[in-house]
Amino acid sequence: MGGNHCWGCGSDNPKGLQIKSHWEDDIAVCRFVPRPEHMAGPTHILNGGIIATVIDCHTVCTAMAELYRLEGRPIGSDPIIWCATASLEITYLKPTPLDQPVFLQAKVSEVSASRRKVKVECSLFSGQTECAKASVLAVRVPDEWRQASAKP
Amino acid sequence: MGGNHCWGCGSDNPKGLQIKSHWEDDIAVCRFVPRPEHMAGPTHILNGGIIATVIDCHTVCTAMAELYRLEGRPIGSDPIIWCATASLEITYLKPTPLDQPVFLQAKVSEVSASRRKVKVECSLFSGQTECAKASVLAVRVPDEWRQASAKP
Repeated sequence: MGGNHCWGCGSDNPKGLQIKSHWEDDIAVCRFVPRPEHMAGPTHILNGGIIATVIDCHTVCTAMAELYRLEGRPIGSDPIIWCATASLEITYLKPTPLDQPVFLQAKVSEVSASRRKVKVECSLFSGQTECAKASVLAVRVPDEWRQASAKP
Repeated sequence: MGGNHCWGCGSDNPKGLQIKSHWEDDIAVCRFVPRPEHMAGPTHILNGGIIATVIDCHTVCTAMAELYRLEGRPIGSDPIIWCATASLEITYLKPTPLDQPVFLQAKVSEVSASRRKVKVECSLFSGQTECAKASVLAVRVPDEWRQASAKP
């Protein structure tokens, strides 16, 4: 897509988490390797805010990818599709170890008739253990909303 | 409290956000100044995952402070009270500007009879604008759970 500076998923943000998502059939997957500083209070456990961040970016990217798919267009092609997070609900099921990668699986559960709202369900795994699950509502926003940001 | 390396609220994590919370009467408040790299896709907007992180830490710290208050003890006194996030629900109301501080206000809405579960409501403001609101369930965990982490 190019020019993505998002702290969670922007390949152009050298200080960010730089997560990458891709489809495996109709499941969007992501592998994220935490950095040592991403600890919670217990220093061997992954911080809940970092978990929220990777879930947020992965699910909203999944929503955008789904809208491209519904329009039969390659991801990132013009006109750009852009979504913002409207709501994020996370249940933390188990402590997530810090010292190993986490895996996210997201699935679109609902697209509004106008294709403006996309609901995505997501689980975060450490090994075979589901450590968190989430439901996220993404809302398509006009490209101007994103473009405005290019002007400091 | 000492020895808090949490990425969101640990004063001992030099790479973390290092948020600090304090009471103003029965409202727990926090002021957070985002770093430039904490952008969303639109580069003038604060990342939703960073918002989730500061809400998570601020509300869980509020829950712990409330439990100390209910026990009539100073925050951080032995035996240590420690909580984990059980669930986090955030509604993003407005884009949050990146280039100015955000202010959080949290209030305890429910404490279970056993004092094991604490529910906290929280709003995040940029200036006078409420940009996000959240409901968080914190659960008290045994101190061993936290201590275990001291052993790498």
